[in-house]
Amino acid sequence: MAGLNRATPPPDAPMRPSELPLPDATTLSNGVRLMTLPDRRAPVVEFRLILPCAGRAYDAPDWVGLSGAAARLLIAGTPTRTSFEIADEADRYGGYISVSANTETAILSARCLASYTEPMTRLIADVLLNPTFPADEVEIDRANTLQRLRLQRSQPAFLAEERFRTALFGEHPYRRLAPDENALQRWQTEHLQTFHATRYRPQGATLLIVGDFEPEAILKLLNDALGAWQGTVAQDPLPAPSMQNAEVGWLLVERPNSVQSHLMLGALCPPRTAPDSLALQLAVSILGAGASSRLFLTVREQYGYAYSVGAHLDYYLRIGAFVAEAQTATENTHDAVRQIRAEIERLIQEPASQEELDATRNYLIGRHM
Amino acid sequence: MAGLNRATPPPDAPMRPSELPLPDATTLSNGVRLMTLPDRRAPVVEFRLILPCAGRAYDAPDWVGLSGAAARLLIAGTPTRTSFEIADEADRYGGYISVSANTETAILSARCLASYTEPMTRLIADVLLNPTFPADEVEIDRANTLQRLRLQRSQPAFLAEERFRTALFGEHPYRRLAPDENALQRWQTEHLQTFHATRYRPQGATLLIVGDFEPEAILKLLNDALGAWQGTVAQDPLPAPSMQNAEVGWLLVERPNSVQSHLMLGALCPPRTAPDSLALQLAVSILGAGASSRLFLTVREQYGYAYSVGAHLDYYLRIGAFVAEAQTATENTHDAVRQIRAEIERLIQEPASQEELDATRNYLIGRHM
Repeated sequence: MAGLNRATPPPDAPMRPSELPLPDATTLSNGVRLMTLPDRRAPVVEFRLILPCAGRAYDAPDWVGLSGAAARLLIAGTPTRTSFEIADEADRYGGYISVSANTETAILSARCLASYTEPMTRLIADVLLNPTFPADEVEIDRANTLQRLRLQRSQPAFLAEERFRTALFGEHPYRRLAPDENALQRWQTEHLQTFHATRYRPQGATLLIVGDFEPEAILKLLNDALGAWQGTVAQDPLPAPSMQNAEVGWLLVERPNSVQSHLMLGALCPPRTAPDSLALQLAVSILGAGASSRLFLTVREQYGYAYSVGAHLDYYLRIGAFVAEAQTATENTHDAVRQIRAEIERLIQEPASQEELDATRNYLIGRHM
Repeated sequence: MAGLNRATPPPDAPMRPSELPLPDATTLSNGVRLMTLPDRRAPVVEFRLILPCAGRAYDAPDWVGLSGAAARLLIAGTPTRTSFEIADEADRYGGYISVSANTETAILSARCLASYTEPMTRLIADVLLNPTFPADEVEIDRANTLQRLRLQRSQPAFLAEERFRTALFGEHPYRRLAPDENALQRWQTEHLQTFHATRYRPQGATLLIVGDFEPEAILKLLNDALGAWQGTVAQDPLPAPSMQNAEVGWLLVERPNSVQSHLMLGALCPPRTAPDSLALQLAVSILGAGASSRLFLTVREQYGYAYSVGAHLDYYLRIGAFVAEAQTATENTHDAVRQIRAEIERLIQEPASQEELDATRNYLIGRHM
């Protein structure tokens, strides 16, 4: 290539201020926090509703997994619509509606062609307010969930994550990763109705709407369609997990005939709201985010111990977790762990260079754009 | 919910004409077709370069997989940059650069913060024009690829797809799904250099650039940076596969101790350029796309035979393939196949209702927005 001087480093171009749009925030008459971001490029509207106390950590101890069933079965029937009619209506509007629960929250996701925004909003309101959890749908979901559980238990990544969470969280509900099989065999329509009545409440929930709509019109529509949805989740707040690790050492899950090991190393750390959480994120990215991170360059590229390796932070509402993860051929397991620990030690002992800080900062900005 | 009359069907709102932007097309001085789509919302630029004759179907018969290695190792070194320096430079620009090969094409993907568009373009040009395929990087890639192959062979979806392609394509190169292990053990720097010199040519390639840039400035920059890249792929066109299936019947891949079966049923069909290909796509979507498709509603919801089930079209440049796919508990395998065949038969024999056509059309539009 002519005309390029390789003796000089790449130019340090200044970042132009970005013009990313931010949503407007307001509150519906029933207490739901509404965030809207009009975007008219495509005639489509996206909905996300976040219910902060409807995830697995809020299940009673002998009903772990009920939250997931309540989420999946929210769209399995209302007094006026069967599960088929709900799915068919969403397809007809050029979109979908789905609900899922994770460790802390339940999330309803929906989209539709813009010309169907009103009937889609009515459909969302119907499943939110009036789910019937029909017995036959509960049985189908039970069978499917059991089968998915059996499949997950055949996968190294799932088994490692399950063991890892127990080590990190001990008995705290954040340890929960999947339904309890014993609870799964027991829940019926009435348990799901009770969970819904106490956990799917508007006060504290957040609804985000992005797409092709008029802000005033959608506010009016939502207040009309969701006005009858009322109430607050009555509950003590979940305690933050103790920062004392429950277990330290090599924790093994045996998996005969496996061609590789799935490694997870980590520890609890402060939540995203902590004052130095951005600095921690930068440090962990230097260690293990992307193809020029230290772990990638040593464990994978220099020594060839692992096919994939990296490090990241998992954020929960009340705490964070630092995780370094790798998939290695079984015979390289020990060497990979040794090298990952050495890199963590080096990160703690030696300051990163200004160059490495700038490069990683650019990497993080680019990834979030 | 008050105010909603459930006796009437949802309104049939007319589709508003969409205003999705289309790229501008032009040609670089070296023959590359350039498509540009300025989008200034975020200070980021995305690059995609498609090389139409650099995929697995173009490997010599005893070198299957060389194309994949050439793609992966394109960014493993140039006379002036090591693999580390290439990855580090891309990270520093707030982005990445990666190359992969699939059945027909190789694709280079890159992104950067907008302020680094020029040095990122120079980096892309350097790896495209001057890859050195260093011997030590070839060895690391060989070990990683072998390990990935072993992992893939433990996964039902991969084994099913491999068997299915052999049934569909017989000896045609489209059957190729993964590298040949014998070839993988043999290739060296010089084989990769030869593949690159004959297959990575600008004439016939397409470069798509989306993001925050000035069209005239980027055209000038590309002509400057890529001007030295010249040439045409010299080759007979690949023949279209014969529409005669090589194999019909139950084709089994045994996998002891598996908790489920992965089913694939299908046949070859005309390519996307065929006059009735949109009608075929609509029909296959009625059969198996989304949660209110016929397969989902019968095989999964009504009978509970499968955890996941669906149908879709795979498009190659010269032909298409119809595929119905399901994951079932082992004991339900036969029932699931019977029901999928019954739904295919019904699709052929009975016209779809206008309602089903309209709903599926909306679904497809919504999914592509």
